[in-house]
Amino acid sequence: MCGIVGVVGKSDVNLQLYDALTMLQHRGQDAAGIVTCDRNRLCQQKANGLVRDVFRTRHMQRLTGNFGIGHVRYPTAGSSGPALAQPFYVNSPYGISLAHNGNLTNVQEIADEIFQQDLRHINTDSDSEALLNVFAHELHKQGKLQPSPEDIFEAMRAVHKRIRGGYACVALIVGYGIVAFRDPNGIRPLVYGKRETDAGTEYMVASESVALDVLGYEVVRDVRPGEVLYIELDGTLHAEQCAEDPKLHPCIFEHVYFARPDSIIDGISVHKARLRQGEYLAEKILRERPDHDIDVVIPIPDSSRSAGQAVAHKLGVKFREGMVKNRYIGRTFIMPGQKQRKKSVRQKLNPIPLEFRGKNVLLVDDSIVRGTTCKQIVQMAREAGAAKVYFATAAPAVKYPNVYGIDMPSASELVASGRTEKEVQDEIGADWLVYQDLQDLVAASAEGNTEVDGFDTSVFDGTYVTGDVDDDYFAALDQARSDAAKEKKAAGDGAGQSAVI
Amino acid sequence: MCGIVGVVGKSDVNLQLYDALTMLQHRGQDAAGIVTCDRNRLCQQKANGLVRDVFRTRHMQRLTGNFGIGHVRYPTAGSSGPALAQPFYVNSPYGISLAHNGNLTNVQEIADEIFQQDLRHINTDSDSEALLNVFAHELHKQGKLQPSPEDIFEAMRAVHKRIRGGYACVALIVGYGIVAFRDPNGIRPLVYGKRETDAGTEYMVASESVALDVLGYEVVRDVRPGEVLYIELDGTLHAEQCAEDPKLHPCIFEHVYFARPDSIIDGISVHKARLRQGEYLAEKILRERPDHDIDVVIPIPDSSRSAGQAVAHKLGVKFREGMVKNRYIGRTFIMPGQKQRKKSVRQKLNPIPLEFRGKNVLLVDDSIVRGTTCKQIVQMAREAGAAKVYFATAAPAVKYPNVYGIDMPSASELVASGRTEKEVQDEIGADWLVYQDLQDLVAASAEGNTEVDGFDTSVFDGTYVTGDVDDDYFAALDQARSDAAKEKKAAGDGAGQSAVI
Amino acid sequence: MCGIVGVVGKSDVNLQLYDALTMLQHRGQDAAGIVTCDRNRLCQQKANGLVRDVFRTRHMQRLTGNFGIGHVRYPTAGSSGPALAQPFYVNSPYGISLAHNGNLTNVQEIADEIFQQDLRHINTDSDSEALLNVFAHELHKQGKLQPSPEDIFEAMRAVHKRIRGGYACVALIVGYGIVAFRDPNGIRPLVYGKRETDAGTEYMVASESVALDVLGYEVVRDVRPGEVLYIELDGTLHAEQCAEDPKLHPCIFEHVYFARPDSIIDGISVHKARLRQGEYLAEKILRERPDHDIDVVIPIPDSSRSAGQAVAHKLGVKFREGMVKNRYIGRTFIMPGQKQRKKSVRQKLNPIPLEFRGKNVLLVDDSIVRGTTCKQIVQMAREAGAAKVYFATAAPAVKYPNVYGIDMPSASELVASGRTEKEVQDEIGADWLVYQDLQDLVAASAEGNTEVDGFDTSVFDGTYVTGDVDDDYFAALDQARSDAAKEKKAAGDGAGQSAVI
Amino acid sequence: MCGIVGVVGKSDVNLQLYDALTMLQHRGQDAAGIVTCDRNRLCQQKANGLVRDVFRTRHMQRLTGNFGIGHVRYPTAGSSGPALAQPFYVNSPYGISLAHNGNLTNVQEIADEIFQQDLRHINTDSDSEALLNVFAHELHKQGKLQPSPEDIFEAMRAVHKRIRGGYACVALIVGYGIVAFRDPNGIRPLVYGKRETDAGTEYMVASESVALDVLGYEVVRDVRPGEVLYIELDGTLHAEQCAEDPKLHPCIFEHVYFARPDSIIDGISVHKARLRQGEYLAEKILRERPDHDIDVVIPIPDSSRSAGQAVAHKLGVKFREGMVKNRYIGRTFIMPGQKQRKKSVRQKLNPIPLEFRGKNVLLVDDSIVRGTTCKQIVQMAREAGAAKVYFATAAPAVKYPNVYGIDMPSASELVASGRTEKEVQDEIGADWLVYQDLQDLVAASAEGNTEVDGFDTSVFDGTYVTGDVDDDYFAALDQARSDAAKEKKAAGDGAGQSAVI
Repeated sequence: MCGIVGVVGKSDVNLQLYDALTMLQHRGQDAAGIVTCDRNRLCQQKANGLVRDVFRTRHMQRLTGNFGIGHVRYPTAGSSGPALAQPFYVNSPYGISLAHNGNLTNVQEIADEIFQQDLRHINTDSDSEALLNVFAHELHKQGKLQPSPEDIFEAMRAVHKRIRGGYACVALIVGYGIVAFRDPNGIRPLVYGKRETDAGTEYMVASESVALDVLGYEVVRDVRPGEVLYIELDGTLHAEQCAEDPKLHPCIFEHVYFARPDSIIDGISVHKARLRQGEYLAEKILRERPDHDIDVVIPIPDSSRSAGQAVAHKLGVKFREGMVKNRYIGRTFIMPGQKQRKKSVRQKLNPIPLEFRGKNVLLVDDSIVRGTTCKQIVQMAREAGAAKVYFATAAPAVKYPNVYGIDMPSASELVASGRTEKEVQDEIGADWLVYQDLQDLVAASAEGNTEVDGFDTSVFDGTYVTGDVDDDYFAALDQARSDAAKEKKAAGDGAGQSAVI
Repeated sequence: MCGIVGVVGKSDVNLQLYDALTMLQHRGQDAAGIVTCDRNRLCQQKANGLVRDVFRTRHMQRLTGNFGIGHVRYPTAGSSGPALAQPFYVNSPYGISLAHNGNLTNVQEIADEIFQQDLRHINTDSDSEALLNVFAHELHKQGKLQPSPEDIFEAMRAVHKRIRGGYACVALIVGYGIVAFRDPNGIRPLVYGKRETDAGTEYMVASESVALDVLGYEVVRDVRPGEVLYIELDGTLHAEQCAEDPKLHPCIFEHVYFARPDSIIDGISVHKARLRQGEYLAEKILRERPDHDIDVVIPIPDSSRSAGQAVAHKLGVKFREGMVKNRYIGRTFIMPGQKQRKKSVRQKLNPIPLEFRGKNVLLVDDSIVRGTTCKQIVQMAREAGAAKVYFATAAPAVKYPNVYGIDMPSASELVASGRTEKEVQDEIGADWLVYQDLQDLVAASAEGNTEVDGFDTSVFDGTYVTGDVDDDYFAALDQARSDAAKEKKAAGDGAGQSAVI
Repeated sequence: MCGIVGVVGKSDVNLQLYDALTMLQHRGQDAAGIVTCDRNRLCQQKANGLVRDVFRTRHMQRLTGNFGIGHVRYPTAGSSGPALAQPFYVNSPYGISLAHNGNLTNVQEIADEIFQQDLRHINTDSDSEALLNVFAHELHKQGKLQPSPEDIFEAMRAVHKRIRGGYACVALIVGYGIVAFRDPNGIRPLVYGKRETDAGTEYMVASESVALDVLGYEVVRDVRPGEVLYIELDGTLHAEQCAEDPKLHPCIFEHVYFARPDSIIDGISVHKARLRQGEYLAEKILRERPDHDIDVVIPIPDSSRSAGQAVAHKLGVKFREGMVKNRYIGRTFIMPGQKQRKKSVRQKLNPIPLEFRGKNVLLVDDSIVRGTTCKQIVQMAREAGAAKVYFATAAPAVKYPNVYGIDMPSASELVASGRTEKEVQDEIGADWLVYQDLQDLVAASAEGNTEVDGFDTSVFDGTYVTGDVDDDYFAALDQARSDAAKEKKAAGDGAGQSAVI
Repeated sequence: MCGIVGVVGKSDVNLQLYDALTMLQHRGQDAAGIVTCDRNRLCQQKANGLVRDVFRTRHMQRLTGNFGIGHVRYPTAGSSGPALAQPFYVNSPYGISLAHNGNLTNVQEIADEIFQQDLRHINTDSDSEALLNVFAHELHKQGKLQPSPEDIFEAMRAVHKRIRGGYACVALIVGYGIVAFRDPNGIRPLVYGKRETDAGTEYMVASESVALDVLGYEVVRDVRPGEVLYIELDGTLHAEQCAEDPKLHPCIFEHVYFARPDSIIDGISVHKARLRQGEYLAEKILRERPDHDIDVVIPIPDSSRSAGQAVAHKLGVKFREGMVKNRYIGRTFIMPGQKQRKKSVRQKLNPIPLEFRGKNVLLVDDSIVRGTTCKQIVQMAREAGAAKVYFATAAPAVKYPNVYGIDMPSASELVASGRTEKEVQDEIGADWLVYQDLQDLVAASAEGNTEVDGFDTSVFDGTYVTGDVDDDYFAALDQARSDAAKEKKAAGDGAGQSAVI
């Protein structure tokens, strides 16, 4: 997962981009980058690390210009290394810099195509670099010294046809403006807003509405699936639907875990969706065990706090912050002559025994992926003295990989893959395991906006809205992951990133 | 405020110290240091920054040895700069390294004394360096090639007589062991525990019990006020009361704000104390406005969550996470030609409007210091649509400076200094302001351990348990702060730290 | 001035490129870069600094692949900043990375052209980036998935027609090989060699023959003016003359000052050319003052040592190392409240008084540019006790700027511009000033290779072999320099680099 | 070997110390440090690296105060690592910081003594730290709040009695002034000078006179063997002989190799001594082979240039710069899957073939230590086409270790140890090897100052002037070296430095 932002302003936009990336940092802590454009010159700073570490005063001083884009990156299997920090750049046509949130499912195909049609070299495995080159190629084909809005839309129509997957992007065209677009299923979020200044209207496009809120932008609306915005330097905004059959199928995992609770995505308040998730979950609990013996509800902080509260309220039992999250996590060192010790979950999450001692505890988490952390949490709860440990998740069992930009392990590593609920319950050691039902999870979000056509719920049900993801795809993906891992092992740390431009 | 830890182990203690400092990081994010001792050689790494940034693999590899101490520093007025990262070191006698949490109130007096008696040069303004030299001098006076436990206790008896203030310390004596001690009023916390290994018993002393818990140590007990522990290299532990008239007057601010909720300090669960604070607060609210119109209780995260929950429960109104804390805070840049912009509170704390809109909201915070943040929060609540904004704090009005190690502004900057409650309420713009009563705050903690003699509540009532803090003291303090500020301004950034050894 | 190198090898070439750049470091200490290609992936590291500082083990580990290029940069007016470290890269066609030594005289014209013809954005003021884009554009026009040698030569024919100035380049084409070329006047040097290994023949192209010598390559020959080499990955070397009317007019300043004495450039031993410069100079001295009273010849180290020795030998007077060069030069700090102090020449060059005291001294330097250092050296010689101070230079008076890649001040800053020899003599304070005659300087080099058509001696006689350098050119150049200086001043340090990709 | 400097000035001395260290950088490139004193506060910056890398503007801004000392360190077997960068510091008495050039031969003895007498912990293997503690202890014994000059001299009398070896030191006493002293044999150099300013007289003490010359100080004289200077803050200078039977036995290796040629040490011009070394060497050549067939003399740059010139002049044959030294040396990388390749001597030193081809060449170097570089040079000369390769050294055969501060391998690694001249000649592959005779080397220096009592020539004749160096000493030394090497191997890079305070 990643966060993106673009601003067309009336004065230097570097500080706005910086602050916006800080607000989007939860979407990716692995790398950060900003590109601005000043009098036909691109200025760039990107590196691995948190926003506060990547940008220093000397960088900010160079990042001049009234329009620019930014990116924060989530660490995924094939995309680490400073070489893959975004935005990416091509100098033809015009000079274009692009930041992407999502994942393409036909990247190899388009990389080959783009080389054969246009001799464009893709230097990394990044689908974002491929996407940028497709866009650049289609725009070049329009052949204009200065692209008109219609040229851009025409190019994007071709792009939408050629690429598949989940993508929300902002692209800066040197000298002309910023283009923002969202895939025809609207899988990844993108929202825009405006702000009036003495010098005129400024526009911001971002992954989540919190970035707009905090910077003083008024949210105009979400970018529609397949829609393309083109904001010229003078502040003129053009919007056009460029996909043939757009549908709104946003990723439901944003509501489960990824997005900030204070964001509103596709008209749905994430906080409210999570409260409703809790209510549905409580109803299921009451349905399954009307005479449950739960003494206290304890959330696993921070993401399950909203849902946990709602569960407790609906069940009418106490809600307690019985697990304390440590904000400061240390590195894992490998010392000569010492066994490598995995950081215990306890260094991240410490129970307050008096909230557990002798009680029947219902732990609420957002979801269970590998199940390993979960298992340790249950164990800690027992050691803290819990009489019984129940475990409920605001989401159903995660059984399938995500291919639209959320980093998930392959199916074989998912605890719920090939296991019954009872088997998962045994695996994590809980006395009772309650999964949200999928229709309830969907309902919790759908109630927020009845115009949503559906949600991408592929990790739960294996249905991929782009229609092109099959067993062959996963076999290839697993192979690539395995190769990358081996190469990394062989070559030593850092070598896995293969290429650096 | 700072965090300290010491370990006498059976194998290299570097990783234990590192992990413990990570657990104590909330007590100080400004600088960190570790000193270990390996075959009569001290190994040290200290620098400004978070624990995860200060220690790299190459440092850890050097930090060998079976005993050592560590420190995390809170940024205070006079103590920034890498020169003042702890532990401090003197090479005579024996080689001693010391880490200190607290603040001495007679530092100038002892610095002069120690120079005149022993020609010892104190190179910084740090009271910790002075403290170390007093301890070193008194130990040197015993005149032993190898100090016995009684030599150490005798030296500490003299130290307790000479220094005044709040102090919890761990000191490493090269070749011999670790000494830990706590001031005769027990103002600053210190707890110790043990862990059995195949090679024998290991001991850890730390500021808070969470460090022991997470590292697998069993808490033995808090170090008593005035008590001195001496743990020899072979693992023999000696404990002795070295103060003449020790009293237990722990700092109540640990329970209000500073300590982690999952710590137990002087037998009192911080989490539970905060829940009781909330209950007392709710009782006061009900007492003052039996027919209050509060619709929802919203805590200011993270420290007031426990108290807020209890308030809501007692009042019987909804408790909602209506304010979202941003975990990632950016720097403040000063750009040429741009106005310096203060980071708005909103970048740290963002309201979820739907929890405010049209409601009478009770915001609960732990305390109000300067009042500036508080004022902005009230304003944000209104902008988010609150009908009425009430504000309650788990602590009484903060009216006096802290002189025992918590960094507080001088009295003139405290919003409650010289203002009535009504005036503070107007200043922060709330419709109603409720302060906890001091006796209730004390009761909330005291119920956890009836053997506490009292609490240091000086910031609320101006009563300083060491008895030596008067108007002259504050006048000198304000002067020093003002001088330091001026010098810093004159000399440019970084120059304020005056001296670097 | 810069240094370039390219290698097509049989195993990883990173260490070879590194060692070669070290041997070329005297051609540029400002920045360094290496690009290698491994299985269709470019790997790159470039940064400001010396070769030994720019490349660390972690970079070398990433720089895999059997072919690559490298660059060291001389700091010139408009080219500082990490953004302008070479090689430069474009991803279309094929992925091309290029390193350039020299300077183009029609850069603005080609930058405009390339944008209008091909929409290619040039993000910096660097003529090297423009050159790369012209090459890329012409290659793209050939329209081949895999370019044949003839495609490359055809493209280069067009490049030679479009660009003017001095240029020696190596370019890496991803997946295919390395192209090396030299401008049609052969102004900048370029030489290639081969080395037999068990796996086959390896080729290296470099600015100077020392790089080949030290790496164990046998020099094949200099690249001819206008000639293009294309070395395919399998080691096949193609060479073709691609200019219409090539002439060999190498820059004579390489022989005066720039090149290492142990290099052989265009068949001329630099060391030997310098010895002959000394002989001619001595003849002129004897001609002008047959009964001179010179007691000792003292060279200004290091570049004038060869010439100085020959002068002394021919004159039959003692040759003494009377000036000691300090290898370690410190920074110049600006302290608050202290006057900025220029580093005195004496910190770089210290006289040994006993070689000066009471003697008539002939100082020999390679050339005089601004005259300021020279003046201080004469002054130091007097203070060291010299009876008379004579000054001779192995080159004639420098009166005109260099436009082919050697960083020289504008005419107004050259001490000999608009001054007679006598006036320069007075300005530097010497008792006698002897300049080499231009025909003698030329003869000293020409004797080494009678097939040279002539030399670029523009800094001495204002004749520019490319025929396109006139007063308008210099007026524009001065304006650009002045603008850059102002912008830098306004924006603070580092801002002058305008753009960073 | 190391370089030291101390200044008592009338304004901030940081820039003077910096510039002086730059002038002394040839004495040590491994680490650098400066300590200044401002209003009773020490300010310090020290780290591994060159002077230009260790001190940045931010450090210089902190290094305020009118007196201070500096140090550059040569990398020796046991003294690498940032922990051992000098100056060293103790805080009792007064606060003393000390920088040392030389080596003590009874360090273990005094370290034990100082612990038992004064409980002073020595945390490193550094003899400099031990020396500082002896000085501190003796000064403490005087028991004064403010030490008088006589107190200092009395303390130094005791120091001279307790320590043995070669030492030249500067020590800063907080609040009082700078003490400079030289061992009773005057083995290591130390010179002082003064400079008049409007505010009064400033004093500088330094390892070599060049530092004084370049900073504008007038040399007063060398510090005498055993003499102690004490310069008070107000500029009063006190000098006293504090050794019982001082003799002047300066290290002759300074004249052979170590010192800058433009320095004057103990009244002897290093440059002139080297010229005389060349003359004596030429006489020996003429004596041994009156009808030699030498065509050309080629020096190994830089240190043998003076001697080489004199040899050539006396022999009446040509002198040519036939070997070019590369100023820029790269790192040695160890790549996975590649054999570790030693940097060849050729990357440091490249022959110009035309000066060798077909000629009988006499190579002149300052000395031969291990013989490995020498062997490669002879080989390169042959490959460059030399008919015969003769090798002469300005110094006799090096057969014994140095124990007074020059880093030399142990005897077993010296090529001349246990070999006849003929055997060494064969080992290095020369056609003829000529060593300077010891009495000639001594005469070359002694002629410069007839008052020298003798020279430390221990590396040539095994006679150690301190009289305490015997076979046991060397056995212990070899053992320690071997242990250190093993420990380093076992613990990995960086771990060998054992301790860091």
